[in-house]
Amino acid sequence: MTWEILNIIGTVAFALSGVVVALEEEYDLMGVYVLGFATAFGGGAIRNLLIGIPVSALWEQGTLFTIAIIVMTVAFLVPRIWLQLWKKWGVFFDAIGLAAFAIQGALFATSMGHPMSAVIAAAVLTGTGGGMIRDVLAGRKPLVLRKEIYIVWAALGGFVIGMGWITSNFAIGALFISIIVLRMLSVHYNWKVPVKTGSSSNF
Amino acid sequence: MTWEILNIIGTVAFALSGVVVALEEEYDLMGVYVLGFATAFGGGAIRNLLIGIPVSALWEQGTLFTIAIIVMTVAFLVPRIWLQLWKKWGVFFDAIGLAAFAIQGALFATSMGHPMSAVIAAAVLTGTGGGMIRDVLAGRKPLVLRKEIYIVWAALGGFVIGMGWITSNFAIGALFISIIVLRMLSVHYNWKVPVKTGSSSNF
Amino acid sequence: MTWEILNIIGTVAFALSGVVVALEEEYDLMGVYVLGFATAFGGGAIRNLLIGIPVSALWEQGTLFTIAIIVMTVAFLVPRIWLQLWKKWGVFFDAIGLAAFAIQGALFATSMGHPMSAVIAAAVLTGTGGGMIRDVLAGRKPLVLRKEIYIVWAALGGFVIGMGWITSNFAIGALFISIIVLRMLSVHYNWKVPVKTGSSSNF
Repeated sequence: MTWEILNIIGTVAFALSGVVVALEEEYDLMGVYVLGFATAFGGGAIRNLLIGIPVSALWEQGTLFTIAIIVMTVAFLVPRIWLQLWKKWGVFFDAIGLAAFAIQGALFATSMGHPMSAVIAAAVLTGTGGGMIRDVLAGRKPLVLRKEIYIVWAALGGFVIGMGWITSNFAIGALFISIIVLRMLSVHYNWKVPVKTGSSSNF
Repeated sequence: MTWEILNIIGTVAFALSGVVVALEEEYDLMGVYVLGFATAFGGGAIRNLLIGIPVSALWEQGTLFTIAIIVMTVAFLVPRIWLQLWKKWGVFFDAIGLAAFAIQGALFATSMGHPMSAVIAAAVLTGTGGGMIRDVLAGRKPLVLRKEIYIVWAALGGFVIGMGWITSNFAIGALFISIIVLRMLSVHYNWKVPVKTGSSSNF
Repeated sequence: MTWEILNIIGTVAFALSGVVVALEEEYDLMGVYVLGFATAFGGGAIRNLLIGIPVSALWEQGTLFTIAIIVMTVAFLVPRIWLQLWKKWGVFFDAIGLAAFAIQGALFATSMGHPMSAVIAAAVLTGTGGGMIRDVLAGRKPLVLRKEIYIVWAALGGFVIGMGWITSNFAIGALFISIIVLRMLSVHYNWKVPVKTGSSSNF
């Protein structure tokens, strides 16, 4: 139950991030829907594809679709004041989506008996694949490839689950909260994964 | 029979639209083939993937492949005068492709017993997915996300078929012609789906 | 055995080409991994998808993953002097990857009884699909669509295998070396596939 609520929050957060990008690019209402759906469900579609679940399993999420389309329509129709709130709170909801999707992807992959590499990839792609599709469709360079630490936390979740350290709902909850906290700290303190610039090593 | 002819027209129109973009981007002959194929068959590939048909079913369309490659080669070799004609008539052939592909995608999805959301998505992706892949491969922002009403007509076709209102070949024909006419009217009168610009609501 | 070594060289070359693009775009370490993996394994993933092998078969390549991740990490950490060497030798390793992947893709497709069109597409996509994904994720126009003859050699390999002309390991070796030599000659003499520019035909 709690899990479903978190999943809904994550889906709504990702759909809204697609809406925000579509509005910035001045896409029309259909562009808003396409980008919102791609962000919210694209990561799961890629994950299903890579770990061998039929991609068409997506269509069993009827309720999530309905919620997403209502949220996107409302976000498009209401005055854009919510964009101010989004700037403040968006990163938090997005962190919930990242944590929920990464854990869900990793649990899927382990339940299918995949090796560690697949579990980490499933966590990363479920958590961040939707955002990459969104950015590619908007003609942007994928943000997750260079913003404050993001993919790492999804990979970490995949690693912890792939090691078999998560054996209770309580442990899942702790991992979930850890990923959110780590992500929020990354944003707050502007933690970055090393980037190499210039022509010589900066290590 | 009629259906096959429409399917051929749609495939050729989509392949040519890929050729046009490749020529504009100064891609070479192989770029022309890649972009043409991606536009003509990419939407069907994504649809197959999402509704659970093996993507490899594509390879049963041998005749369509042959036609597409001949058309693309000729379009590349002949003087570019046809580009003038394309500017005039391209949007009409493209509308045929949109209508044929959207209906075909929706019929596929209903025949597999998918819910309405999947039927609409299949119609939209079959009708417009190829064009999105084309634009992404050409480093452009997908045109369908903001040009005159386009995706809407594919979605409408999906909705009508998903509701089970189409029970005869005659009804399919009527829907097919309706989508083409609506799309042509959208271009002619420059109908747009609402876009929100500026910092306040313009509703 | 020889085959496996060539496959490793190809994978490493493609992963490194992803690393080079990620460094140029100033992506962080995770961006380096994502781009490297996408380049090295993306072509194979698309090919599996299109010819009907489960995409999840990717995860059986555990050793290749480990090698790729070690190479990418080292390439990221060491001083960037290797980029100079890459400029000189990268095109050669890349040619090995192109040849190994194109042949492998074509052999896969023939072993599944696909028609010639699918065999050529499998050769082209396995050989060049990873590079296209890399460029799209980096917000660039896919290089293979316009650089010195590249896709053609993959298509040629697919054609030769699709015709059933390759019946021994010796023949595979000869085809492999031919593709590398043809690709290197293309770069050295700057061979181009015809491009049409200007408003009139230049044939």
